[in-house]
This record gives sequence, C-alpha cells and structure tokens, in this order.
Amino acid sequence: MKEKGLLIVISGPSGTGKGTVCKAILDKNDFWISVSATTRSPRVGEIEGKSYYFLAKEEFVSKINNDDFLEYAEVYGNFYGTPKSKVLEMIEQGRDVILEIDIQGALKVKDNYPEGVFIFILPPSMVELKNRITKRGTETPESLMTRFKSAYKEINYVSKYNYAVVNDNVDDAVRKIESIVSAERCRVDRMKETIFDCKEGLMHEQLYD
Amino acid sequence: MKEKGLLIVISGPSGTGKGTVCKAILDKNDFWISVSATTRSPRVGEIEGKSYYFLAKEEFVSKINNDDFLEYAEVYGNFYGTPKSKVLEMIEQGRDVILEIDIQGALKVKDNYPEGVFIFILPPSMVELKNRITKRGTETPESLMTRFKSAYKEINYVSKYNYAVVNDNVDDAVRKIESIVSAERCRVDRMKETIFDCKEGLMHEQLYD
Repeated sequence: MKEKGLLIVISGPSGTGKGTVCKAILDKNDFWISVSATTRSPRVGEIEGKSYYFLAKEEFVSKINNDDFLEYAEVYGNFYGTPKSKVLEMIEQGRDVILEIDIQGALKVKDNYPEGVFIFILPPSMVELKNRITKRGTETPESLMTRFKSAYKEINYVSKYNYAVVNDNVDDAVRKIESIVSAERCRVDRMKETIFDCKEGLMHEQLYD
Repeated sequence: MKEKGLLIVISGPSGTGKGTVCKAILDKNDFWISVSATTRSPRVGEIEGKSYYFLAKEEFVSKINNDDFLEYAEVYGNFYGTPKSKVLEMIEQGRDVILEIDIQGALKVKDNYPEGVFIFILPPSMVELKNRITKRGTETPESLMTRFKSAYKEINYVSKYNYAVVNDNVDDAVRKIESIVSAERCRVDRMKETIFDCKEGLMHEQLYD
C-alpha cells in the first residue's frame, strides 16, 4: 500500500517572500498547489481553476454549510476559502499538496487537519522586511508602522507551527523546505504501510522458508 | 546566540546495515561521533578514544554512580556505555552528534535525552536481511530462525522512534538522514534563539528608525 501525501502549509507575515518561495518550490517539485475559491469578481488575466475558483455567493455559502472548506474568511465583503475535497483527494492518492496562506487561515487549517506540515517563513532581517514593504511604494509612514507592529505580533504565532524557515535566500529556503518534506515522509507515524509491509515480509520468510 | 546541536541516534535491528550507513554519513558531514566506553580488553588494532574508551571496572562503576552515562549495559560480564559529558559539551557548542546504538540502548538514551532525534533503520526487505545475516556464515538454521524472530520483535520498537529509514540503498538512506537533520534544525522548538533575534531586530527597527 502507498502512504498518503502531505499537506504542506506555507505561511508567515506579509513581506517575508512566501509567495516567491512557493513559486520556486513548485518549479522544482511535483507538488499539487491548492487553488482557493472566492466570491470576488475575476480580474483581467485571472483564470478560473488556476487563479481561483470563482463562485457565486450562494454557492460559497452552501459549501460552507456542507463543511467543504479547510478554512474560509470574509474580507471586505468577499469570501475566500480553501476547498477541502480536492485537497483530500490528492493526499489520498499520495500527492503532496502545497497551500500558501496567511497566518489566520493556516491556524484554521491546523484545527481541521492537524497532521499537516506547518511551515512559518521568517523575514531574513527586519531591515530587509522594511525595505520589502517600503518598495511596494503604497505605504505612508503611519501605515508602515502599523504593518511593522502587525508583523511583530504575527511572529509570535510561529509557536503554533512545526517548522520555521528564515528566507534570507530563496534557494536556501527552498532546500530547507524540500528537506522538511523529505524528513516528514520518514516520520514513523506517516510510515504505517511501509512498516506493515516490512513485518509482513518477515512473517512470510519465517513461515515458508 | 547559536542554537544547540542535535543528538542523532541511529539504531535498528542487527543486519539492517546501520553501521555502513553511519560511516557513509560521517564521510560526508561534519558530525561528531560518540565513542563508547567499555570494560572489556582492547583487541588488536583498537585505539583508545577512537574504537572505545577502555576503562577499568571500578572506573566504570564510579561513572555509573556519578550518572555519567546516557545509557549503559552489561553484556557477558563486560560493561558498555555512552559517556554523557562529552556528548552534552559538543551539543552545547552547536555540533551535531551521531550515536550508533542498538535498540535497548537507544530507548535508554531517549529516557535521558528525549530531545534527541531517534532514527530507526529498517531492513530493505526480509529476503535481503536474511541474506545479510546468512552471509556472515556463523549461523546454524536454528540460530538463523532465532535471529529472525528477534528481528521481527525488534521492528515493533520502531513506534518509539521519530523517524524510520528503509536502507534499500546506502546513498538514499544517507540522503534521507541528511534531510532529517536539516529539517530538525528548522523545528520551531529548536529555533528559540533565531526567533528571539528576529523579534529583537523588529523591536529595534520600531523604536529607533
């Protein structure tokens, strides 16, 4: 029998580069990336089923009532959520699934799927985090301070995660995440089938040889 | 501040090739390997401090009484043990320490140092395990059956370990163990200093910039 796939949740404060890290991981590995559902309208260039699953509000609410989201949230009147069935189907097939998500979402996923692998991306340094937020160019000094205070508070949530990876260099961060995935596949509590097969083989040898 | 090193315990039934795997890991990585103490006499070619620390029985017993072993056992009238102080000193300095040990020893180490990384080497297949035991040429059919039954019972102890690595290929096994070490360094509960530094940096930015 084949072992189940992993749900790899990549999360962290904004400005830590988790999107860039995820993109680099997907370029190199055959992971399946979870696509979110939303009730907001598609923007130019966005593709159904790739950028998002675009749903009418009634559809979304009906899926909430059917417990069909690993997590969902309402932001400025629009719903966003992670569809559960497709993710679980891939995992059952032995595929590893990547989910890039903010901290509040990740904590909800953890409630619903605690056997996931929860990875927190830490900013390389605070100076660098500030540069990245500033570079976006949309921030006033006040909003920059608010973002900073929020990042400071958010870093406390790292204690709810299994792993933390400092993103001082995208290639290093990717290598670390690949190691985490490889190691998690070797965790005894994820190797029930392999260990069962090993013992069966031994039993067979004893009885018939 | 620097994070502590890891105690990596490599263990498993006899005939799984854990010695070969350990040697291959040490060839490629700057790990410190723990050397056992024993009261048995040195054999030809054995080197004090490299093969073993050779101790008089009184010395060994006095070290037991001083709680200076991570584990020890008496086998056919001779004592064997893992000296604690040197291992802990290396770990404090940030060095990763490898300890190759049988299952009973590993379980005692776990009692004394539960934050270690406990890796169980599984035989590639039962046919292969039997070939390896048979190749040693010293076994009668009866003793072979005894060894097999013992291996079967021993595999049940895998549930006490953190990780299991199937040794179907030494290079693959080494790569998996390297991933485990790399991943363990990213575990949130081992990254207290890094996370503290990250938050300090943020605090500093907020106050003075």
